Order: sequence, then structure tokens, then C-alpha cells
Amino acid sequence: MAKDNIKIYKGDIIFTKTPDKFESIEGGYILVEGNKIKKICRELDESCKNMEITDFGDKMIIPGFVDLHLHAGQFRNLGLGMDKELLPWLETYTFPEESKFQDTRYAREVYLEFVNALLESGTTRSVIFATLHKEATDILFDLINQSGMGAFIGKVNMDRNSPDYLIENTEESLEDTEYFIKKYANSSELVKFIITPRFIPTCSSELMTGLAELAQKYKVPVQSHLSENTGEINWVHELHPESDNYLGVYDKYGILGQDSAVMAHCVHNDNKEIEIMKKKRVFVAHCPTSNINLSSGTAPVKKYMDNGIDVGIGSDISGGHILSIKDCTAYALQASKIYNMYVDKNSPILKTSEAFYLATKGGGKFFGKVGSFEEEYEFDALIINDRNADKSLEERLQSFIYSGALSDIERRFCAGKEIKKI
Amino acid sequence: MAKDNIKIYKGDIIFTKTPDKFESIEGGYILVEGNKIKKICRELDESCKNMEITDFGDKMIIPGFVDLHLHAGQFRNLGLGMDKELLPWLETYTFPEESKFQDTRYAREVYLEFVNALLESGTTRSVIFATLHKEATDILFDLINQSGMGAFIGKVNMDRNSPDYLIENTEESLEDTEYFIKKYANSSELVKFIITPRFIPTCSSELMTGLAELAQKYKVPVQSHLSENTGEINWVHELHPESDNYLGVYDKYGILGQDSAVMAHCVHNDNKEIEIMKKKRVFVAHCPTSNINLSSGTAPVKKYMDNGIDVGIGSDISGGHILSIKDCTAYALQASKIYNMYVDKNSPILKTSEAFYLATKGGGKFFGKVGSFEEEYEFDALIINDRNADKSLEERLQSFIYSGALSDIERRFCAGKEIKKI
Repeated sequence: MAKDNIKIYKGDIIFTKTPDKFESIEGGYILVEGNKIKKICRELDESCKNMEITDFGDKMIIPGFVDLHLHAGQFRNLGLGMDKELLPWLETYTFPEESKFQDTRYAREVYLEFVNALLESGTTRSVIFATLHKEATDILFDLINQSGMGAFIGKVNMDRNSPDYLIENTEESLEDTEYFIKKYANSSELVKFIITPRFIPTCSSELMTGLAELAQKYKVPVQSHLSENTGEINWVHELHPESDNYLGVYDKYGILGQDSAVMAHCVHNDNKEIEIMKKKRVFVAHCPTSNINLSSGTAPVKKYMDNGIDVGIGSDISGGHILSIKDCTAYALQASKIYNMYVDKNSPILKTSEAFYLATKGGGKFFGKVGSFEEEYEFDALIINDRNADKSLEERLQSFIYSGALSDIERRFCAGKEIKKI
Repeated sequence: MAKDNIKIYKGDIIFTKTPDKFESIEGGYILVEGNKIKKICRELDESCKNMEITDFGDKMIIPGFVDLHLHAGQFRNLGLGMDKELLPWLETYTFPEESKFQDTRYAREVYLEFVNALLESGTTRSVIFATLHKEATDILFDLINQSGMGAFIGKVNMDRNSPDYLIENTEESLEDTEYFIKKYANSSELVKFIITPRFIPTCSSELMTGLAELAQKYKVPVQSHLSENTGEINWVHELHPESDNYLGVYDKYGILGQDSAVMAHCVHNDNKEIEIMKKKRVFVAHCPTSNINLSSGTAPVKKYMDNGIDVGIGSDISGGHILSIKDCTAYALQASKIYNMYVDKNSPILKTSEAFYLATKGGGKFFGKVGSFEEEYEFDALIINDRNADKSLEERLQSFIYSGALSDIERRFCAGKEIKKI
């Protein structure tokens, strides 16, 4: 084994390979070569005996969290407008705030604060909506790159049904999108561009067709919103009576299936939509905080999982009020209890391992081999000082998810490197 | 005005007199004499001009939070056992943990940690279940007294349907209760004893009758649990087929109406129970986190408020996973959305002012004139450095409730005095 490139970390390791159960090793070792995990073991073999070990004692080592859906341009609105449903909330709080990102100084100030808060919260990878502004989105790329976190970042497209102060013309929207695709195609292994139509109501057919052509030409992934709230769904049906369902509108433009896609929310999808999701590699970003805050409903997460659809967790700030995916994981567990109590008594509540899987490997799959401590996976990890070492590792993790403090997270690694606030 | 006793605090003041709206004064003054508020005003009059002012600048001054229901003896279990419903959760996690408080060294260690965490979370008054242990409960009284917070503390009574390692005989249970009543009757204005039968299933008729006699003889308030979970309610019906409803069992012993009472949860109360609650001065401790965690349901809070029943918020640790009443207030808002979505579409969601009222003046009423910044109210206050002064005070408070950090709480006052970790 070439010793120079290998780093060895020791601690109380816990992660999920599959949703149904935890893998855990007390006082185990993770061998990392470059950005990837080479081996995970209970004991080191002879060849490692003289190598340097970073020993975290009885602290927990867990995979970094993955946030599959959030709006960086809404960071300053955290916790505001929580007495409204989706459409009035957009109009009163969200659109006015996003429009401020025309000012690059404001953008730099807020995005710097956001990037540090994201890193501090224990997220190592995220799929981000910026705003429609080109310069501000470039600033966000720079800052995320500096941080060492992994991300897909999208400049938002919106050319109809939007306020005068936050709208673009179709041609410019497409040109700007191609600019980002080209600029960030090969600039970083960790930070990439993602095509980001806001949602069907704000995107003309011309815009959607153009974005689909770009997705096809450059094989770029796509993110958007889907079936969040009944008011929104009715609006989509009014705008597109020709389509059977909401996801069908995206699909008819050909924007799905060129590369992978993330659809946020998926609270009210029908079985036909589930079929399209399976065929077209659509990930569900489950956003439990946002779905309660905006009275949207409760997504049938277990049904998606049982159908083999990839699911991860999204903070959806600022429809969601909490940036921490740890806290959103507790909310995902609670949302499954609400779903079981009120929507379908036959749908079992999520096990802690299932929710943790969604928050790590489930969403991590969108980035490749991310979110687990298996061989060949990128080493994204958090070191947790939970002061609970008298309990079992599974209990410690559950207690951290529900009741831990962000200050319990002592160190953070992404793709093999330690990352720190910028 | 006798200047020597008066303290003047200046800042951005926000509180609720009534549930329906906030009262706020930017850059306002609160004049405190001893433990009580003498005056609250926008401008100081001449008589105050030369008095010293503690100026908190544009930080918020809000009432301290009131926690109407929590189990100090379950503090170490925070976030554990969240995959179980009430009865198996008690058996697997709660009873074994509470039994450890027989060891006074363990009790002192955990209670010290608990008291500091409670204070840090912004709670200034609380209604506390200790455990059944006499010495450990005395330790908790000492520590809460040292902290300067206000509290009702109860030694738990349980003499049936409990594990061998956590049960007492009836006589001793009553003797110990009388010991606490006498010892703490006049020992402190802030920290008092409350009679605490665990819940009907663990208390024999003899015990309940004895406790009722003590409540009557000494005019001591009572706390217990009511109609939390369907499994529990069915059990009460089996044990007491003679009674129409759960609250009726408490009532027939004569334990209600001697002084005030707090009943935790009240998720599934019927209209007859609501009538008893009105007549017998029963406060509802609404515990939204716990009720989701243990799949108990969602309490009809708005219905209680409309019926003129006093309601406050309880963290119910460790059925609840969060000690902070600020966070529980966000959950109360969310629980009202769940209730509106799934239980009764005609029941409006709580306004932010309503939820904040419950968390301050609503629960505060159990302590007298507590939880508001009106004249003659005791001065319980938190100084919040929310760094959001560009927003309106109502927006700032909403944002703090949903998304603020506990570290935003810079200073804490209870009954006119600043309180700090011990």
C-alpha cells in the first residue's frame, strides 16, 4: 500500500449501506486515499501498523449530510412568512428578497453568510437554487468552490407569471444558462451546474423547450419543483390542460431523462407520475419542514422508496425554516408518523436507519458514490462529539439526530479533505 | 418615584397581552421595581431623566418562556426511543432511566446539567415532574432555587402497574408528599411544590384519594397526564369502567378544583372533559413535539382556547426531544397546521401571536402575573440579539421562534433579577 497518500481515521463509525439497518464499528478505522475510501475495518492489518492515525477517540464518525433542495437566495428570509401558503408566500416574501440579488454586493454578503452556515450545519453536498441573476450566481459558485463542499448550483429560469422586478426574457434566460453550462462544465470535480427552471407556472413553453435542448446537448442534470401544494397543482392544470399530470408537463418538453433530475416536494404525485419518475431517473427531494410550514401536506416517502425511486432530504430554505439536514431528518421521521396517523395507516413509519439513509446515501447518489463509508465512496464525514459514549452507537445517532446541537459537530470532511468556514 | 429600587431597561420590546395580537415598542422602556414591572413606555417622563438605564440597543426584549410540562428525570434520554409509542416507550426507556435517581450522586450530576440547559434554553418558569425519589427531588429543589428560575416541582407518585424497580407503597408515597408540601410551603416565592400523580394507570384509588385529601388540606396545585395516546386511554377505561371519561377518574377522587391543575397533552378529550376542565381550573399543557414523536395525535388547542380554557406549552422532555420552548412554539404552530390539514379544516391555524401567547402569558398564568410586560407583572425577560433589526419586530420575533439559535439569547431575567448558569 502506498503509504504517503493514505490517511487513517479512527473512531466510533456509523453509517447506512441500505435503508433497513445501520452499519456500525466502535473504535473502527477508515482508510482514505485521495478523495476516496479505500477500506473500512475493525482492526488494521500489518501493512498499516506504522502509519499515522488520526484518532477521534469515542467521537462518532458519520457521513456528511446531503441537502437535495434549497434556495440560497432565500437565506435571509429564514423563519419568515410561515403563516402563508406557497403562492402568497412567494409573492409577499420570496420574490422581493430574491430580487435583491441583482445587487452583487448584497449577493456576496448574503452568500458568504449562507455558505458558512451551510458548512457549519454539517451539510457537505447540496443541490442549490440560486436566483435568476447571472453575476450573483457566479459569486455563489466562487464561494462554494472556496469552501470545499460539493454542490450542484442552478441559475433560476423564469420568464412568465413573475413580478416585473424578477423576470427575464426567454432568449437571455437561455443564453445565460448556456454560459453557465460551458463555464462550469470542467472547472471542478465538486461544484457543477444544474439546469433550474423555477417551476412550470413561471416558465414558458419556449423556455422549457430551449432548456430541454440544452440538457440534451450538454447532458446536464435538471432540478425543479413538483406537486408541492394543491393551489400550485391546480394552476399547472389550468396552464396545461393538455397534460394528464404535473410531471407530464416537464416530460413533454423532453427535459427529463437526458441526465438525472431532482424534483422537490412530490407531495401529491399520482401513479402515472411515479411511472415517469422511475423511467426518467427523477430523484425526490423530500422537504418535510417546508411541507408543514406552507401547509402543503405530507409526501408518501415510503411509497417512493418501495417503488425504487431515489429519495433524499431537502431543507428547502426558506420554505423550510431550518438549514440543518440533521434537524430535517428528525422532521422526516415525524412526517412519516403524521402520514401514518392521518393519511395511510398501512404506511409504516420510517425507521431511524431509513431516514438517515435518505439524508446521506439516498441524496448522495445524485453526486455519485457519496453518503456512505463503503469502499470507493468519496470520504465525506462529520466528527461528532456527542458525549454519549455510554450508549449504543445507534442510540447515540438517534439522539444526535433528534436532540443534538450543531456545536456537537467538531470537524467536517468533503471528498477526502477537511473543510472549514471561509 | 423612589429611584433606588427602580431599574430601567431599554430595547425593542415585544410581547402579547392577548392572543390575537402583538404589542411592540421599538426603543421602548420597561421600569422594574423589585420583582415587578412598574411601567412600560415609549418615552421616559421627567422624573426618570437622571436615572440609570440599561440600554440593550436594538436587541429584542421578550418575556421569558414558560414550560408547563417536563420530566427532569428524563433529561438524559433526550432523543431516545423515538420509534416507540407511549406505553412501550415508558417500559423500555423511561422507567429504567428514572430508576437511576435512587442514586443521589447521579441525580445531582444530571439535575445540575438539566437546570443549566433549562436556563440556557430561555425558560424562566416551569412545571416539573421529578421522579418518585425523595432525596433526588430535594436536590432538584436546591438546584432550581440556586438558579433563580421559578418552578413548581413534583415528586412523582406511582404505586401500581409499575416495574418492581420503580414503585412505592401507598403509605410512603403519601408521607413523602406531605413532607414536600410542608417543607416547601413557605420556603420560596419562586419555587414551590406540586402534587404529581404520574397518571391514572400507575396510581391506586387509595393513593389518589390520599393525594386529594392533601390537595384539599394544604391547597396545593396538582399536575398529571391526560388523554395522550389511544393505548393509554383504553387502559384507563379498562381500569375504571365506572367512569365516563379519563378526566372524570381524576375528578371523582376530588383532586381537581382544590387549587389549580395542569394536565399534560389533552390530545383526545371529549366535550364532557372540556366542561370539567372549565369548572375545575385545569390548565392544558400542550406538548406538540411529544405528541408527534410518540404518534399520539394533535391536540385541539384552538378549541380549548375558544372554550376559555387556559393553555400553555410543554416541552415534555423526553417524550419531547427539545427542551427549548422557543422551538416547541414553532412546533405548536406546525401542529395547528397539521390539525387544520388532517383533523378539522374549519379549525384555523394558530397565528404567531397566539402561539407566542401560549408560550409566555398562557402558561405564565399558572404562576400568577407572569409572561407579559404589563404593569404589576413579574419581570421575566430574555434579551435577544437576533441581528435582524432591519425587519419589523413581529417579523424578527417570528424568525427567532422558527429559526433563531439559543445562542441569540444573551441575557435572562426572572422575577426582576438576572439569572445565570450555576
